[in-house]
Amino acid sequence: MPKLSLAGIFPPIPTPFGADGEVDHDRLQDNFERWNEEQLAGYVVCGSNGEYAYLTPDERVELIRVSRQAIPDGRLLIAGSGMESTQQTIDLTCRMAGAGADAAIVVTPCYYRGGMTAAALVRHYRQVADASPVPVVLYSVPANTGIDLPAQAAITLAKHPNIIGMKDSGGDVAKIGYMAHETRGDDFQILAGSAGFLLGALAVGAVGGVCALANIAASRLIRLWESFMRGKAMEARGQQLPLIEVNTAVTSRFGVPGLKAAMDMLGYYGGPVRPPLMPLPEEDKATLRKILEKAELYHENNSSP
Amino acid sequence: MPKLSLAGIFPPIPTPFGADGEVDHDRLQDNFERWNEEQLAGYVVCGSNGEYAYLTPDERVELIRVSRQAIPDGRLLIAGSGMESTQQTIDLTCRMAGAGADAAIVVTPCYYRGGMTAAALVRHYRQVADASPVPVVLYSVPANTGIDLPAQAAITLAKHPNIIGMKDSGGDVAKIGYMAHETRGDDFQILAGSAGFLLGALAVGAVGGVCALANIAASRLIRLWESFMRGKAMEARGQQLPLIEVNTAVTSRFGVPGLKAAMDMLGYYGGPVRPPLMPLPEEDKATLRKILEKAELYHENNSSP
Amino acid sequence: MPKLSLAGIFPPIPTPFGADGEVDHDRLQDNFERWNEEQLAGYVVCGSNGEYAYLTPDERVELIRVSRQAIPDGRLLIAGSGMESTQQTIDLTCRMAGAGADAAIVVTPCYYRGGMTAAALVRHYRQVADASPVPVVLYSVPANTGIDLPAQAAITLAKHPNIIGMKDSGGDVAKIGYMAHETRGDDFQILAGSAGFLLGALAVGAVGGVCALANIAASRLIRLWESFMRGKAMEARGQQLPLIEVNTAVTSRFGVPGLKAAMDMLGYYGGPVRPPLMPLPEEDKATLRKILEKAELYHENNSSP
Amino acid sequence: MPKLSLAGIFPPIPTPFGADGEVDHDRLQDNFERWNEEQLAGYVVCGSNGEYAYLTPDERVELIRVSRQAIPDGRLLIAGSGMESTQQTIDLTCRMAGAGADAAIVVTPCYYRGGMTAAALVRHYRQVADASPVPVVLYSVPANTGIDLPAQAAITLAKHPNIIGMKDSGGDVAKIGYMAHETRGDDFQILAGSAGFLLGALAVGAVGGVCALANIAASRLIRLWESFMRGKAMEARGQQLPLIEVNTAVTSRFGVPGLKAAMDMLGYYGGPVRPPLMPLPEEDKATLRKILEKAELYHENNSSP
Repeated sequence: MPKLSLAGIFPPIPTPFGADGEVDHDRLQDNFERWNEEQLAGYVVCGSNGEYAYLTPDERVELIRVSRQAIPDGRLLIAGSGMESTQQTIDLTCRMAGAGADAAIVVTPCYYRGGMTAAALVRHYRQVADASPVPVVLYSVPANTGIDLPAQAAITLAKHPNIIGMKDSGGDVAKIGYMAHETRGDDFQILAGSAGFLLGALAVGAVGGVCALANIAASRLIRLWESFMRGKAMEARGQQLPLIEVNTAVTSRFGVPGLKAAMDMLGYYGGPVRPPLMPLPEEDKATLRKILEKAELYHENNSSP
Repeated sequence: MPKLSLAGIFPPIPTPFGADGEVDHDRLQDNFERWNEEQLAGYVVCGSNGEYAYLTPDERVELIRVSRQAIPDGRLLIAGSGMESTQQTIDLTCRMAGAGADAAIVVTPCYYRGGMTAAALVRHYRQVADASPVPVVLYSVPANTGIDLPAQAAITLAKHPNIIGMKDSGGDVAKIGYMAHETRGDDFQILAGSAGFLLGALAVGAVGGVCALANIAASRLIRLWESFMRGKAMEARGQQLPLIEVNTAVTSRFGVPGLKAAMDMLGYYGGPVRPPLMPLPEEDKATLRKILEKAELYHENNSSP
Repeated sequence: MPKLSLAGIFPPIPTPFGADGEVDHDRLQDNFERWNEEQLAGYVVCGSNGEYAYLTPDERVELIRVSRQAIPDGRLLIAGSGMESTQQTIDLTCRMAGAGADAAIVVTPCYYRGGMTAAALVRHYRQVADASPVPVVLYSVPANTGIDLPAQAAITLAKHPNIIGMKDSGGDVAKIGYMAHETRGDDFQILAGSAGFLLGALAVGAVGGVCALANIAASRLIRLWESFMRGKAMEARGQQLPLIEVNTAVTSRFGVPGLKAAMDMLGYYGGPVRPPLMPLPEEDKATLRKILEKAELYHENNSSP
Repeated sequence: MPKLSLAGIFPPIPTPFGADGEVDHDRLQDNFERWNEEQLAGYVVCGSNGEYAYLTPDERVELIRVSRQAIPDGRLLIAGSGMESTQQTIDLTCRMAGAGADAAIVVTPCYYRGGMTAAALVRHYRQVADASPVPVVLYSVPANTGIDLPAQAAITLAKHPNIIGMKDSGGDVAKIGYMAHETRGDDFQILAGSAGFLLGALAVGAVGGVCALANIAASRLIRLWESFMRGKAMEARGQQLPLIEVNTAVTSRFGVPGLKAAMDMLGYYGGPVRPPLMPLPEEDKATLRKILEKAELYHENNSSP
């Protein structure tokens, strides 16, 4: 019995900014109202899709506080508390726990990547987990960090009583399966870090996903997850395949600007990104709209003209 | 109804060399006798695991001829006929078809990688497929070539009447799923290029796998494949997970020298690799043996002391 | 006539931490006293070698203030003020200018690397340069950031009146020469970002270097620079070649932990790094000592037993 | 006194093909007549720019034979004899030596890159050098092969009596300088593998260059080399800088198709490339022409309208 179940679908929510670039808590509230209608397992706040790298520690803590109020009981609030230094990560994790986070998701430090050996990463996560008042989820996202948390490091860390799982955004299902196998005796739950390989990851032992696409297609991903969980692999395949292209559009292809533009198109508040990220160009918006239509997300969600 | 079904498991067989470095057809015959006891869908001869890059065109054609005699009716002989130039690929493909190949598997050319754009690769494969007397299977293996055949190129090529599928060794199941989805109206069959992500690939639409591991663990992979095909995804997971580590050992970790050493340990003929490949060091052999034991392959297969 | 000459050698100074992990300003003062004996053109404070990624904004500003007091007139204090977001970079640049920085060196943002297009980087640097009270130096360090500031972006930015140069740590002298050529009409000065390719960069138009090695071998690098500037290319070669191996040791090979260990060996204060960086293992220290000896740095600098 | 001096500039000549794709020896003769007017130190035949990967062994040997007849006494004919396997490389090296090559240049094998460790490469080159009737030049070209021959491997190989040097196309002048330093007691000569970093490489000890650009700008590169050799580093800089952009155009940017198009524009015979390489599109030709004009190569060389 896991201490805290990570089974299911979690959107890593974008941080809404107003026209002046400030965090807009009202818009966040509005988005949560709509997301709360879906059977989501919880939310990741201040993750990569939340532009955490552009937020001050104070803004991050405040986002947790505000999100906590908007999230109903029974759903997890997982707070992105990673910083480059171990001490700063510990400090922020404690503050976020105090602000209401149920768990902390901690990205691999990456600036001194030559020094981020498996040993260094294991020590980092152990010190954070030792100090954290809430359970810790490892987070590997090589597309942003240039670092793929090694399977052996994760397997070692899975033994730590306060490390309950890992979000892996690398998309290597052989690695995910290997980790699932080697940690089968531990309370260690793996989450697919992107909807593009959600089914592939579930097939080899992941328990759910933290998927940017869940911000705009929650019900579709939840159905996919349920199909697989009920043993309907072929049904799940039919639900997975049409979502890959649109998932790519709101992740690697168009990035957070693409995700926010899609949210704007579908009745959520996306709003501007913080510079140096650039807003999505008009021609890319047109492409994005076509992709949303092809995936049958545009008409389904959108009631605005 | 596909022209030629690629469903099932195919070992990409190593080329046996004698002590003098020459191709040893007798040993090949011996290996085939044992492989033929398994329900394999066919064989890839002169693929990457066959050290094709170290074989002359004449040696390659002769390998096809000899293999054809050893392969029973109803099983496919897929010949690795890729060369760097389009014309040389066409010439070798025709010769191999003449020697008995049922299909040709053609690796992406890669030396002038700056020039290997999607357009160049599409033209290459079209010209090969136009000229080939047998169906063509695309082959993307970025770990060797540095080139990942783009999904859009594959989707375009899937329309060609003489291109029947693709072996993708990149391990990106989002890409595999996307290609499966976009080619669903075509006669285009995708094969997982490694056993590590076989289940992940099947889950999103692959029809089988060309797996180095099938040289030493055919029955295990066939059972995995059958479980999935019968809708037993959880059973397939239980079969997939213990095979990932050993698959890594005989592919990316220890390479062809590792695969051949494992064959020697398990009663097949592995034998030497051709230089510049180095034989597996003794300490790595010990590690490999432990991994085979852990995967329950060593005792299962091996009757020698 | 450049507004601010960057000609010469600049050490990117490490940040000294005490046993408790706090910044130790007294030790910094001690180091400066020794560095000030050399004909250095100035100092980079809070750069990559200063573990800036592990410092709070307040610590960074305080380091500038303290350094300013320790740096004699006529030597530049260049402050590393880069943050991930444009606004935070502007804020910190202004604070650092207020604390006494002569110029700001701004690393490329990198977390959302998919979005860090040439256009995004140009906009980022323009906004920072527009707002900065002191001249701005671009800083490209792909080994840490995964981003190589494109030559065309630098050439475009060289036209900005408040952008005076660039530190390029990528080591591509063809790129450096191309930028030098295309900006020859601008007030744009290029600095080699590592001592390993200092002479190569000077040969194609760089005016100096920001070199980690200058922390422990200032006089050697200054002599090299002077030889080249006096037209003695062969003499400069004789000075460059014996320094490449030791430079690699205190940069890519052993990183900041290696640089700090070398400082400790040579009578400076190196001290601990902040976690997650690991201290240099004893066996690597022994290797490092041998490399320092081979480069004739160990006996030259060290008076301790 | 080196056994064979590699000092100076060598063009790696393209292989001329006729409209039917066959090697056109007459056109090759014509090109040689013009190249022979320049003070080139020799020629590399069947290198990467010679599309060697698209040539049969017989075509390669015949190209050496024909080139030998066209090359005047006192100029070196260096034959690209690399193959993937050690034995095939030995065989081809011997045949090319028999056909008149003065030395062999041997590219790193690369297909099984996981197995191409320093130890494997050292063994490969030793076996080739042991067997070769002519001196051997190492050749590292990571842009094509994905493999950067490690400095330590080169330093080890420099001790071999039949290995006289190395062409390094990686552009890392710190590596080049380090190798020059560590092999200073050996008869080991380093050649810059591209004109973009020719001066940077000369500055740290290279003795010359094998430069695609020398096919169309021989006199310019020879003057650069002479300036540096006479101790005129600033003069050499003035000659180097305007050539970087055009060098990029005929190498990494437009590849062999670009080099051949430039040759056609400048009165040499370039002609078609072999597929899968694509001919240079018209719009790229227009860009290329402008770059040739900017570098003052177009009007200088071209007498056609």
